[in-house]
Amino acid sequence: MEKNWDALDAIFNPRTVAVIGASDNPGKLGSHVMRSLTEGKYPGRIYPVNPGKEVIMGMKAYPSLFGVPDPVDLSIIVLPAGQVPKIIKECQEKGIKGIVLITAGFKEIEDKRGEMLQREIMELANQYGIKIIGPNTFGIVNLHLPMNASFTPEFSLVEKGEISFVSQSGGMSHLMGFLSMQNRVGFSKIIGLGNRCNVDFAEMVEYLIKDSQTKLIAMYMEGIDHPKKLMEIAKRANGEKPLLAYKVGRSSTSDKASQFHTGSLAGKHEIYESAFKQAGILTVGSSEELLDTAKALALCPLPGGNKVAVLSGQAGPGMAACDICETEGLLIPPFSKATQRRIEELLPPLAIRTNPVDMGPAWYDSEAIKGIVYTVMDDKNIDALILCIMFASANRSAVGMLTDLLLERKTDKPILCCFSAPAGIWDDEIKRLEESGVPNYPTPERAAKTLVNLFRFKKIKQ
Amino acid sequence: MEKNWDALDAIFNPRTVAVIGASDNPGKLGSHVMRSLTEGKYPGRIYPVNPGKEVIMGMKAYPSLFGVPDPVDLSIIVLPAGQVPKIIKECQEKGIKGIVLITAGFKEIEDKRGEMLQREIMELANQYGIKIIGPNTFGIVNLHLPMNASFTPEFSLVEKGEISFVSQSGGMSHLMGFLSMQNRVGFSKIIGLGNRCNVDFAEMVEYLIKDSQTKLIAMYMEGIDHPKKLMEIAKRANGEKPLLAYKVGRSSTSDKASQFHTGSLAGKHEIYESAFKQAGILTVGSSEELLDTAKALALCPLPGGNKVAVLSGQAGPGMAACDICETEGLLIPPFSKATQRRIEELLPPLAIRTNPVDMGPAWYDSEAIKGIVYTVMDDKNIDALILCIMFASANRSAVGMLTDLLLERKTDKPILCCFSAPAGIWDDEIKRLEESGVPNYPTPERAAKTLVNLFRFKKIKQ
Repeated sequence: MEKNWDALDAIFNPRTVAVIGASDNPGKLGSHVMRSLTEGKYPGRIYPVNPGKEVIMGMKAYPSLFGVPDPVDLSIIVLPAGQVPKIIKECQEKGIKGIVLITAGFKEIEDKRGEMLQREIMELANQYGIKIIGPNTFGIVNLHLPMNASFTPEFSLVEKGEISFVSQSGGMSHLMGFLSMQNRVGFSKIIGLGNRCNVDFAEMVEYLIKDSQTKLIAMYMEGIDHPKKLMEIAKRANGEKPLLAYKVGRSSTSDKASQFHTGSLAGKHEIYESAFKQAGILTVGSSEELLDTAKALALCPLPGGNKVAVLSGQAGPGMAACDICETEGLLIPPFSKATQRRIEELLPPLAIRTNPVDMGPAWYDSEAIKGIVYTVMDDKNIDALILCIMFASANRSAVGMLTDLLLERKTDKPILCCFSAPAGIWDDEIKRLEESGVPNYPTPERAAKTLVNLFRFKKIKQ
Repeated sequence: MEKNWDALDAIFNPRTVAVIGASDNPGKLGSHVMRSLTEGKYPGRIYPVNPGKEVIMGMKAYPSLFGVPDPVDLSIIVLPAGQVPKIIKECQEKGIKGIVLITAGFKEIEDKRGEMLQREIMELANQYGIKIIGPNTFGIVNLHLPMNASFTPEFSLVEKGEISFVSQSGGMSHLMGFLSMQNRVGFSKIIGLGNRCNVDFAEMVEYLIKDSQTKLIAMYMEGIDHPKKLMEIAKRANGEKPLLAYKVGRSSTSDKASQFHTGSLAGKHEIYESAFKQAGILTVGSSEELLDTAKALALCPLPGGNKVAVLSGQAGPGMAACDICETEGLLIPPFSKATQRRIEELLPPLAIRTNPVDMGPAWYDSEAIKGIVYTVMDDKNIDALILCIMFASANRSAVGMLTDLLLERKTDKPILCCFSAPAGIWDDEIKRLEESGVPNYPTPERAAKTLVNLFRFKKIKQ
């Protein structure tokens, strides 16, 4: 166990990294990996290894690992598949415990020799006590170190946060990274498991559960070789860290395709669904839903129950939020009598004053808004709040005001928002809002769907 | 009929506009309306009307409509509700046929006098042959004229396009406007029906069906007073212009709320669903789905059948697209033998070569990509294509190359894409792609869901 931790920790927090197959030819993956490390401001020492070069990107290059003067914690390999077994032996001799094996051409190819080669390197790695991420992976990123050990330098643009993403697909990792940039979501680690030579979901989740920089774990899966092991680890983690899974393979074609892609038997979707639920893993149905839900789990508390208040600046978006909540198991109950009375004191009878409340007529009156929001926050009949405001010239100050209100008065109820405006208008306010633990979503429906998922997680967690 | 057209055309294409209640006090809606018209570069003449001012925003102001020296086509009213009947009489005397009545305080308020006041102005308007958009509306926008006759100057930032959006909620109109900016969707007209004094969905759809600048009509609804009339008009339009509806009120609370909001009886959701289908109106379940689907209907042809090819740069996102397609009624069939053979000639056996195809191993070989895409486009067993590529340094040129390919060879099959990258990297290529009739979506699931909707529309249209 401890050995696994050490090897994986060498991968995620290395003091020194060797890039085997480093290059400065922009047509080679080895050059992208070098750029990822340097542009991503990796603070440790980098040793480019390439027998044909003395200098790569201005750094001294070494003909082989043996030329490297210092101990190496992590070796990133971008050499052709056939050379990998020999390199793994060299890694062992050099005392390296962690490898990110970007090279493709193993179990995923049609030629059976790929599978044989993967078995060979797995046996070597297991024998040496080496952990291999990959092969056939884009790499890994630890935004806390920071270290971008991938072939995509742009991963360094992702914000640092508390969500770790473990993915069976490099494409899906890239998508999540790009979506996170657009949706202001921070990641702790982004991990491409690739063909899962000797690090599968189970090992990775076990590591991340102990990782202090990871608050929750989001997974993208096609199929798992050892589902039982993952479920056991997940069950033990239940209550500690939320686990989220987006698994494809609901349809027969994608199920079959996943067998080819990473060489795993995907298996029936329904079996997974029920096993996930039992293990306390929350399942979601799309990449956006995965990101939206992870964002909320990273930022805000779980609802104590399913009773939701919707407060909006315009009636329509509020109704759209109610629709999603109510059709997916949440309630939009009447307020307590005291709350209702207070709202009627504060809000003129010009729009809806019952739940959902249309606060439109009060935008010029910050004291009224404050009174309504606080009263609803304190209502014992309410477990969670959704706030929706669409920008209009007349309510420009609304989001800043609401942010101040929410910062002034903490609550243990989740508050999810949809504040929408043209680019630039509310960006600073929304950033401040999210930093205070209130996530914002692009539409009322996505805010509502995310709250549905928080409640679903609350239930499977109990 | 012709009278209705003339009155509505005076509203959407006026040569002259009077703003009754114009102001240059930024705390007043009348100032926002003035800014909307001027900053939105309305090309006709603007007459601010305000008895207390001689100059408003540098323009000569008039004490009343009667002081305006020229004929007025459209009058935008932002005065308090109680003054509106008198102003409508003055509009009639001035020969005005079209009014945008932004003022609130009519049927939507709890006080019964609001409803009475609305009846009064409706009777006046009907008697005078005047059409009123509103009351209780944010206004209307015609991006072709251009004219922003709303209290939100930022609507002028929306791109000009062929989708007209008719909404019962101003909040939802603002949301769609802001989403369109983020998703590169163009609008022809954005219309807030408000309380629907004497212009309801039926009249508006009838007008837009004849409007040469409108290719399709997207609607947001809470409830309709005269559903039968809308369904009849929709049935007649079937085949001419696609009609899309997003109706809230699936849940009991939002249904009840909508009765208050715009004073209409929302009615049971299921009845609407079935009536919409019969009338050839495609229903969707969220604001994003409405925008995504409208975008595709504006840009690309309908699929001839339900057989989809998924070509991706990485396997994972392709599988996610397949999952949505297959669970929602589309097929991911095997290619014809000739297509399959050709793909195997062009693509090394390093990844999935059956449908869905993982084109990853061929990114350095533009001729191979060209061959694969064209072969699949020509396969008689395929009705539509989904292309997914997540950016990585090694495939930076992929989207430009694919755009060139798709521009070179036109097809009558819809092609939907998910090309995802950090901001700025593929923006120009994606713009070029969309201008050529290929819509791009932020996730593979949204591209797939949109294709599902194109096929659903194809079926209800038949």
